[in-house]
Amino acid sequence: MSKPGKVGARLKGSRLKVRFCTNESQKSRAELVGQLRRLGFDISEGEVTAPAPAACQILKERGLRPYLLIHDGVRSEFDQIDTSNPNCVVIADAGESFSYQNMNNAFQVLMELENPVLISLGKGRYYKETSGLMLDVGPYMKALEYACGIKAEVVGKPSPEFFKSALQTIGVEAHQAVMIGDDIVGDVGGAQRCGMRALQVRTGKFRPSDEHHPEVKADGYVDNLAEAVDLLLQHTDK
Amino acid sequence: MSKPGKVGARLKGSRLKVRFCTNESQKSRAELVGQLRRLGFDISEGEVTAPAPAACQILKERGLRPYLLIHDGVRSEFDQIDTSNPNCVVIADAGESFSYQNMNNAFQVLMELENPVLISLGKGRYYKETSGLMLDVGPYMKALEYACGIKAEVVGKPSPEFFKSALQTIGVEAHQAVMIGDDIVGDVGGAQRCGMRALQVRTGKFRPSDEHHPEVKADGYVDNLAEAVDLLLQHTDK
Repeated sequence: MSKPGKVGARLKGSRLKVRFCTNESQKSRAELVGQLRRLGFDISEGEVTAPAPAACQILKERGLRPYLLIHDGVRSEFDQIDTSNPNCVVIADAGESFSYQNMNNAFQVLMELENPVLISLGKGRYYKETSGLMLDVGPYMKALEYACGIKAEVVGKPSPEFFKSALQTIGVEAHQAVMIGDDIVGDVGGAQRCGMRALQVRTGKFRPSDEHHPEVKADGYVDNLAEAVDLLLQHTDK
Repeated sequence: MSKPGKVGARLKGSRLKVRFCTNESQKSRAELVGQLRRLGFDISEGEVTAPAPAACQILKERGLRPYLLIHDGVRSEFDQIDTSNPNCVVIADAGESFSYQNMNNAFQVLMELENPVLISLGKGRYYKETSGLMLDVGPYMKALEYACGIKAEVVGKPSPEFFKSALQTIGVEAHQAVMIGDDIVGDVGGAQRCGMRALQVRTGKFRPSDEHHPEVKADGYVDNLAEAVDLLLQHTDK
């Protein structure tokens, strides 16, 4: 397998338009891009579609002032947002900040609203760290939904609006685009529902059972990102 | 209104059989009974049906060794339970113990099991304290259900098994019994589904909208426990 940086350079050197779509909600784009750069990717903040800035746009458009149940690492993304006298809740992968106290604060804010609005940055069940599986934002979103008898608005993959905004930014139609990702439901299923084709890489959170998923079938499976890029460039050259 | 103690004495002085059914899962029966005694109720631990001892019976019958995600106040109820090398999770109203770390521990135990068993002491959404509304066990049960893709077994009201075990203990058939409670779904609805009649008291967590609940209609509404007891004793005397 090529190094990720090399793969990135090959993509950027081609005439393909590239957009990075992430559900990362523990880090700001600045921090995320820093990490990718250290891995050798030539990437800037402007090339990343992430749920926190997408949520900020929604908050501004609708005059919403959130109670933020989020990780400190992503708080800087909300610097320009008025959080006084909250009239909604934004929940993200808060990790250790998912204390009973913070959950109860969010719950009390929602229960005091006539039309409670809960915005969730993704709805992932869990993710893998070296220390083991970790609860993601989804379970906590479900907890607040049940407690308040409401339904959250999900910002991030697999929400169609999220994929559409990524496509819009680079001026590409869904049928012209290919999604590459390791999550059979969030990446592959979400992109396909938007009319995109989608490849699943057999790395990261991929599990062999994904290739027989009851609901989602990828348009192709590749062993890693390098193979996906090879495939795309072959088709582009034709 | 009569004092609760007087009401209790009138009930106990009658030929009615009485059983106290609670979903309290932050306190042991000993602590709960102590509180009720201080309120003037002549009551002993043996007269209380509570979810923790009911769960212990299930654990013993099925050879289950729980990871306990519970409040310290109820831990003594599980003194006789083997918690080594857990093969299930018991979740209760853990309050401040619902930390991310503890939730993640419970999640990891469940994900490592071939047939994950999650036992939840009740499934209440929230309860009221002087400081405001507080999240109950239900939302956290839902969080683990979603994270693991499983369904919890609920021990406590409104589970039919729970009401049945209370009736069995006093040797009373469902059609002979009347439930008195303040929770339209957990108390009234649950008891009715077991074939009991049920009165809702207009105290505690009662809300005026309960009298027009879309799914549950009590057999009668009373202003308080004393009025409920009056009603029962009148019918008994006939």
